[in-house]
Amino acid sequence: MTLRVFFGADPRRWPKYAGPVREALAEIGIDAEVTDAAPDPAAVDYIITSPGGVILDYRPFSRAKAVLNLFAGVENLLSNPTLVQPLCRMVDPAMTQSMAEWVTGHVLRHHLGMDAHVLGQDGVWRNQIAPPLAAERPVGILGLGELGQAAGQMLAGVGFPVTGWSRRPKSVPGIASLSGGQGLVEVLGGSDIIVLLLPLTKDTENLLDAGRLALMPAGAVIVNAARGGLIDDAALLAALDSGRIGHATLDAFRTEPLPPEHPYWQHPRVTVTPHIAAETRPGTAARVLAENIRRGEAGMAYLHQVDRARGY
Amino acid sequence: MTLRVFFGADPRRWPKYAGPVREALAEIGIDAEVTDAAPDPAAVDYIITSPGGVILDYRPFSRAKAVLNLFAGVENLLSNPTLVQPLCRMVDPAMTQSMAEWVTGHVLRHHLGMDAHVLGQDGVWRNQIAPPLAAERPVGILGLGELGQAAGQMLAGVGFPVTGWSRRPKSVPGIASLSGGQGLVEVLGGSDIIVLLLPLTKDTENLLDAGRLALMPAGAVIVNAARGGLIDDAALLAALDSGRIGHATLDAFRTEPLPPEHPYWQHPRVTVTPHIAAETRPGTAARVLAENIRRGEAGMAYLHQVDRARGY
Repeated sequence: MTLRVFFGADPRRWPKYAGPVREALAEIGIDAEVTDAAPDPAAVDYIITSPGGVILDYRPFSRAKAVLNLFAGVENLLSNPTLVQPLCRMVDPAMTQSMAEWVTGHVLRHHLGMDAHVLGQDGVWRNQIAPPLAAERPVGILGLGELGQAAGQMLAGVGFPVTGWSRRPKSVPGIASLSGGQGLVEVLGGSDIIVLLLPLTKDTENLLDAGRLALMPAGAVIVNAARGGLIDDAALLAALDSGRIGHATLDAFRTEPLPPEHPYWQHPRVTVTPHIAAETRPGTAARVLAENIRRGEAGMAYLHQVDRARGY
Repeated sequence: MTLRVFFGADPRRWPKYAGPVREALAEIGIDAEVTDAAPDPAAVDYIITSPGGVILDYRPFSRAKAVLNLFAGVENLLSNPTLVQPLCRMVDPAMTQSMAEWVTGHVLRHHLGMDAHVLGQDGVWRNQIAPPLAAERPVGILGLGELGQAAGQMLAGVGFPVTGWSRRPKSVPGIASLSGGQGLVEVLGGSDIIVLLLPLTKDTENLLDAGRLALMPAGAVIVNAARGGLIDDAALLAALDSGRIGHATLDAFRTEPLPPEHPYWQHPRVTVTPHIAAETRPGTAARVLAENIRRGEAGMAYLHQVDRARGY
């Protein structure tokens, strides 16, 4: 019997995904019709979704066995009460790798003080200050999911002493790890550069508030590659104004696109990047989608299924 | 008998080196007097030198067994006909690491297109273009000495396909390697980003001339972390003007400091950095100096002795 897979994600992504998803399903022997239109929602077996997707009400999809997100973050989907099917995050190996590259690049940028040169091509030769070695520059990663682990291990490979933090204890080869409230105090106090790679949940919202920003070493740098809601924006702006926080490179915001009048755009200690740290790639993501459909048909546990109590 | 070691390097470096050199010698049991003054040149056993050093004429140092440079590059010392003693380059593990960090940081900067964001905080959200993965961005390293090997291996660790090139065949774990004239054609033609880590010799002067620049893919990026003389400046400026070369990040120049009126400073496709890619660190370099003095006293071969025929 032919499965019906409905691409209900952002329609702009359909042309890039149609081919790879069909090929990935065919490759593992699943007979499926993949469409971006669902004349009869009640006939759909699997739903592919994303931010900007076309489905506001999931109730008519009464037969759908699972909802498969194209992205890692699911906080918007969890706030939709009509979505009661098993929901899966995307863990795309290419997205994980691109996130690790982006994080490593921006940590090195801050470590090496590159901006002084990129912005300061003024004919003045300033060669006084050599940066310390990476080994002397502790980096903290908040969040030890697939993205945090990959970024932490790449940074450790370059030579940084990396400490990861997660709510519950985790062990990750090559990096130190801390957990819980006291662990958070330690990692914030001991890191020159803090990278945010946490999911946004009720437990992590405004995690970096005034009190926690005050724990960081003077001049510390923040790299947010996850979600805008993890940071109390007013507290961060105050800490940047005072110079206590040396710089923030922010790739995610409460409102995206970040409005042109937002103070982050103008702040000399902030670099805004437009949610580009990591993107799901159709070729690799399609194989993850196909594998989850195979698992659903075989009655197996899904990969990366969201735990609603945990929020990710 | 107490050895006499004369610090004839740039006098501004003396305060940072005096302690570490004395300690490193004491640590390996060598009885030595280390001074920054030589009342009797004929009594000096070993000379420490550097660019900006105080010795123009090495002939009065008739007893000196070796001249130990604080830096990796020795082309200026080799052009001094009075220097006939064994001459050693510095291979400082901390300098090697800092070079690898600097190269990896700037390669990631170009790979990720960071400058568009660092320079473009104008309130416009531009998130159209995701860079390829590092795995899809071939990097070439010209020069496979200690610095080229370390930089190449760190880049490979991040995920770049790295091809190194050296005059004579070399095998380096983790990266591909090419050699000779045909190898140079291949590495230039196949690399989106080329990193220069070659010594400056009569064979490498103007290595990147108009003909070789024309071999590189359109929009390729050059990172010169070695010596200014490796590049034909007029040819590079022409290739940048035409856009054939997309960007050049240059840390070394024929004249340093680079004069404020030099066109590199003003060129929108050039980033000048003031010879900061890697610096010898007194703590680690002092141990290399001490080891070479120990070897000299024991009649052993020196570490990193310069081959005058080869030029490095």
